This record gives sequence, C-alpha cells and structure tokens, in this order.
Amino acid sequence: MFRYIESHHNPIIKATIALKQKKHRLLKQCFLLEGERLCQEALNSNIAVLSVFIEESLLNEFRPLLAGLTDVNVYIVNNKIMEKICSTESPQGIAIVAETPSYNPEEFLEPNRFYLLLDSISDPGNMGTIVRTAWALGADGILLYGDCVEPYSPKVVRSSMGGVFNIPIIAVDAHYIDELKKTDFQIYCSDSNATKSYEGFDFSGSIVIAFGSEAHGLSLEIKQICSDSFFIPMIASADSLNVAIASGIIMSKVWSQRR
Amino acid sequence: MFRYIESHHNPIIKATIALKQKKHRLLKQCFLLEGERLCQEALNSNIAVLSVFIEESLLNEFRPLLAGLTDVNVYIVNNKIMEKICSTESPQGIAIVAETPSYNPEEFLEPNRFYLLLDSISDPGNMGTIVRTAWALGADGILLYGDCVEPYSPKVVRSSMGGVFNIPIIAVDAHYIDELKKTDFQIYCSDSNATKSYEGFDFSGSIVIAFGSEAHGLSLEIKQICSDSFFIPMIASADSLNVAIASGIIMSKVWSQRR
Repeated sequence: MFRYIESHHNPIIKATIALKQKKHRLLKQCFLLEGERLCQEALNSNIAVLSVFIEESLLNEFRPLLAGLTDVNVYIVNNKIMEKICSTESPQGIAIVAETPSYNPEEFLEPNRFYLLLDSISDPGNMGTIVRTAWALGADGILLYGDCVEPYSPKVVRSSMGGVFNIPIIAVDAHYIDELKKTDFQIYCSDSNATKSYEGFDFSGSIVIAFGSEAHGLSLEIKQICSDSFFIPMIASADSLNVAIASGIIMSKVWSQRR
Repeated sequence: MFRYIESHHNPIIKATIALKQKKHRLLKQCFLLEGERLCQEALNSNIAVLSVFIEESLLNEFRPLLAGLTDVNVYIVNNKIMEKICSTESPQGIAIVAETPSYNPEEFLEPNRFYLLLDSISDPGNMGTIVRTAWALGADGILLYGDCVEPYSPKVVRSSMGGVFNIPIIAVDAHYIDELKKTDFQIYCSDSNATKSYEGFDFSGSIVIAFGSEAHGLSLEIKQICSDSFFIPMIASADSLNVAIASGIIMSKVWSQRR
C-alpha cells in the first residue's frame, strides 16, 4: 500500500508539485491540500482522494488517518519533497491530491434552495472564509460569476477549513442566471441605498443572495437582475463592511429564518 | 509648508522607515499608514497626523487632501523613498505618520457601553477586520487581552480600513478586568456548549463580549470570569466559524438590539 519516493524528479512528485499552478489544476481536474486537520476533513468528506503524501518521520503519527482507505496511493517522502509539495512555510508532514468536485448545474435549480452568488470575489482569504461560513450556516451552494479566484487554489482551500469539500460550488454565466430567473428563484443583493434592512427581510423560498467584490461592488448585469435588495445598518461615518463579514451577517439571518 | 527630501539617508526618512518595526512604534508612540483612502480617513478622523509624505509626481493629485492642514509637515519624496516607507507592493504615493491614539482606561468604565474583549487574536487580517466591523456596527471600544497582534501595525491598520482611527482600543490585564467586573459590566462569551443561542440572548446594559483566538479559544482566566455564554447555531458537521465572522454576527445582533 505504501510506496517510498526519494527523488523530487520522480514524475509523480513533479505532477503533484505542478498542481500548485492553476493551469495544471484545471487540466488535471485535481487539487492539492495539506495539513493534518484539512486532510482529515477531506478523508471524512465525499471528495475523491487520489493520493496521500506523508513525511517518513511522521508515518506512525498519521497512520490512523489511513485506516480503511482503499484505492488510494500512499507515498512516503522525505521532508525536502514535502516542502516542495506544500505551500505553507511550515508543512505539517501530510498532503493530499483530490479530484476537483464537479456538480451538475441542473441540480442547482431545485426549488427551495438558498445559494450565494459571488461576483468577482478575487481575494482568496475572503473567498475561503465565505465558503467556510456558507458551509457552517447551511447554505446549499455557491455560484461563482465573473472573475472570481479559483476555489480550489491552496489559499482558498486552507481558509475554507474544509468548506470546499462540503459545499457545492459551480461557475455560472449570464445565461445560467437567466435560466435561474425563469424558475421560482428570487435574486437579492445587499445595497446601501436599499429601503429595507436585512433584519426584517423575508429570506424564505428559493433564493440567491449576490455579493460583489470589495473594490467594485456588484456588476451591472447582476444588479439589474436582482428583484429586491436590503441594507445592513451601520453607523453613519463608516461606509462598508468586509464582504466576508457582510455575507456572514446575512447568512446568519437567513439560517435563523429558514432552519 | 512643503519640504523636498531626496535621500533615504535623511534622518526623517530613516525614522519613518523605522516605524515599520513594532519596537520603534512603541518607542515613538507613532504609526505609519499609506494609500489615498486610508490617509483621507486619517485626516478626517481625530487622530493627530504628524507628517504626510507624497511622491513628487503625484503632488497635484493629492494637494486637495492637504487643504486646511496646519501643524503638519508635508514631505515631497521620490518613488524610491516612497517604496521604502510603504509596506504594500504597489504604493499609492501617499503615506502618513500619526500619533498612536491613547485612551484613558478609566473612561471605559462608564455604564451602558458595549465592548469587545479580544483574547490573544494574533492574525493581523482578523484583527483588522474585527476593528473595522466593530467601528461600523457601533461598538464603543475594544479591549485587548493576552498576546494580541499590535493594532497599529501596517497590516492591521490596512485591513481595519480606518477603523483603528475611529474606535478606542486599549490593552488590559487581569487586574483591569477584575475592576470591570466590580462595576455593572457583564462579560459574555461565545461557547459551543452554551445552552442559549445568541439569537434570543439579551445584550442590553453594560456588556463586554469576549472572543478567543482561533487556535486556542478563550483562555481559562477569561472563560472563568464570564457570567453567561451563548452559542451560534451551525450545521452539525461544521465545527467553527472564523473569529472575525463569529464576532461580526454577534455584533450585528447586539447592534440590532441596542440601537
């Protein structure tokens, strides 16, 4: 079951390191994750784990994680190779290659779901935090529109704390959103000029809530298709919240109303 | 009013660059901030701006910001010096040295206030986001306990989006918290084992809400002095929220109840 690899010229190692780059992740439909907690979360989730890499000196420590694994390649490597595979400064000695989950966009159209629509969210920390929160607060999925950061990049995966394994995420275009609008879905957004506070807003039914980038807000296309909007009350001198915070506040309200 | 400085060996420039280091910020009781938006926010706030640095090619663009300024040194510098002063990769051509605000801890003890207590929050992005949210959602101040990141470090100042100029922040010790407890203040915390959800929790009166670090949670000392706790409902398989998100959700509820 275990295989030792000693050279970073080994083609398996080279292909794994290549997954740090977006183009290789898209080409292979695989992504990399690292660290004990994240790897455990991946192994407990439904995503398809293809390979596990363990630093040789830590094999006994991580052996319990491997119990019951089948059809998974386990590679034992030295710390130099582990450092090359990992993106963090102090790798924890375990990394995984998993298949990028793929979801059927048709299934997103089922009624009575609550989705987030993220419009060109480019900061990986914000994206990861939003995914983590959406998972914890029971959102049914995330739609990515425009120029969003790739959700399976190492930094997003890390800051999502495993959220990316547990909540469906799909990229959508204007056509898809048009189709969504033809169903029962209502699309709402946060807007500082709205007349209703989120506090009394009705978040029942089939809904999508859109959030735009911090730099540019929502794009015109998305703004135009929203059927209603709400504001988040703030003191007058402050002009905005971080997008992860704003979406967290809204998701907590939606979760309060719907669960 | 303007003074040109052409060498980065100039003692004013050297002293300014030194403020990137914590020990010099603490010694001089000054801090550095950069970028148009943040500098404008600082000039509009009550903090004492000591010096403004402007890149020579952008003087005309930034001149309106300087209107009405008195007792402030304005230094015109070249882009090499600006790069040395700034911490971001693409400096926007304006930076400020301001006095670190100092607040009287006695004044924090006035009744009917709402404070956050942050216990060893070490991530600058989280700290900055929490400060930004606390400002926007009407908290009266922030108490820092244990090993928190310094709130006037460049990254915290940046991610607070000007929050650090606008909300009082003080470092406190166990003795101070004991004194606080002898007044009318109630100290609450978030605890996944609590019996009450935050949704129906009574956040009126003189209150302090404590949040611990993501890695270690609340320290025992702080946990022990809390008179009550609440939980944030989540789906069963998710175990936690980012601390900035959790505090944002709670602050939005407190703000709903108190304003």
